[in-house]
Amino acid sequence: MKMEDKDCKDVSRRSMLIGAGAIATSAALAHFGGVLRPAQAKGGSTEKWPWPYVKLDPVKTAEICYEEWYRVFCGGAVINSIFGQLREKVGEPYTSFPSDAFTFLEGGQVGWGTICGSPAGANIVANLIIGPRIAGSQDGHHISADIMQWYSEANMPVYEPKKARIEPAKIVKTISQSPLCHISVGKWMKESGLSLKSAERKDRCARVAASTAYRVVELLNDWHDGKYEPTNTFKSSSENGITGQFNCMECHGDDVPTAPQAS
Amino acid sequence: MKMEDKDCKDVSRRSMLIGAGAIATSAALAHFGGVLRPAQAKGGSTEKWPWPYVKLDPVKTAEICYEEWYRVFCGGAVINSIFGQLREKVGEPYTSFPSDAFTFLEGGQVGWGTICGSPAGANIVANLIIGPRIAGSQDGHHISADIMQWYSEANMPVYEPKKARIEPAKIVKTISQSPLCHISVGKWMKESGLSLKSAERKDRCARVAASTAYRVVELLNDWHDGKYEPTNTFKSSSENGITGQFNCMECHGDDVPTAPQAS
Repeated sequence: MKMEDKDCKDVSRRSMLIGAGAIATSAALAHFGGVLRPAQAKGGSTEKWPWPYVKLDPVKTAEICYEEWYRVFCGGAVINSIFGQLREKVGEPYTSFPSDAFTFLEGGQVGWGTICGSPAGANIVANLIIGPRIAGSQDGHHISADIMQWYSEANMPVYEPKKARIEPAKIVKTISQSPLCHISVGKWMKESGLSLKSAERKDRCARVAASTAYRVVELLNDWHDGKYEPTNTFKSSSENGITGQFNCMECHGDDVPTAPQAS
Repeated sequence: MKMEDKDCKDVSRRSMLIGAGAIATSAALAHFGGVLRPAQAKGGSTEKWPWPYVKLDPVKTAEICYEEWYRVFCGGAVINSIFGQLREKVGEPYTSFPSDAFTFLEGGQVGWGTICGSPAGANIVANLIIGPRIAGSQDGHHISADIMQWYSEANMPVYEPKKARIEPAKIVKTISQSPLCHISVGKWMKESGLSLKSAERKDRCARVAASTAYRVVELLNDWHDGKYEPTNTFKSSSENGITGQFNCMECHGDDVPTAPQAS
């Protein structure tokens, strides 16, 4: 493998590919090119945002998520660990949301290794509660970007469950540099030398889900208290002229293409 | 760029990385390692599957989706183009589903270039209607896998809208070999020479969404009629020992790593 310890995060952040003038400020959302219209929600009462939210305990959420992973896997576990509590504390619209349907987020969507179900589930939770950016608030969009970057940079798994099924010393930690399941799981498998089917790999993924549920609840609690400030600093579309992650050289090597600028 | 016209689809399909004995039959779902338990849905009435479904017109769905892209972008457009019609024809539980919240699927999830919102949206639709595999039917899971493979192999965009905003000759077609937004959009930008912000790129993505909505409605109509047969033939976890796509060499070059087998 030629693609290990180098990436173009720093290059990207300095925006060398396009030029510093293109860097968006954190206030200016780096939208990648759609046409905004005023929101005209077409659904029912669930499309009035924000949904009622009460602060949750991140530790309790992570513990529920860890156990739920063994029932509905990463994406379903993150969603259920939060919405299950909100069903009890708040009721609707959480009661009517079909969380279990999101089991398919497993393995980067039915095993295709795209986005890890943990950030995918967290993104769903944040945007269901806060609403889409077209409905007025950018906070759900920003929390998703925060989660993607935090997930990519964290030494995973961060959270250690109270009653772990596998002793902690057997679960090595790795930094994925990407929110993709294939890369996150692949780097962990390479470091641990263990297979996809190993009990340790499963428990690692349950802990990654628990870590992500913990993190998004921290952000939602801050948002609830009016204290939320976006922390994401990477905006691929404005910095690189294409949607993407910051680990460019991991796939492209030294030959990172420049995005066309013609409009 | 070193990663153009070669992939390891054939290699992968022959399962050279692990051995032919590991190939799952189409009947045996290639689950990547979780522990199945009987489904115990924790939500309300929306977690009784399948949801009521009536057959939809793929052309009408694609037309709605094309227009909706300019309001809620790829993932939201695919979901709304189908659920919007089912709200009118069926009512609940579609009326209560907050489709607009999925605007964040844009750009591979808030611009991070992971899974294209079009297959992500189609996967949500199929699994909400049919239910998760833990609830008894594998069909939703299989339709998702069908969509991922079809999307990767199709010469996109397939569908041409009746009242196109950009004349068709200006929208080149490309094959992504991947369901990732970064790769799908990147190959199109390279071929067209046009930027992410160009009107043609936007319209191309609206057509990709419309194409995907058309395709998933075809599959759901077959499923409704009891005629659905899975067509997906690629199962990364059993063939390669890791979740992933079939374009291995596009990122790894000739040095595709072998997944650890230790359990």
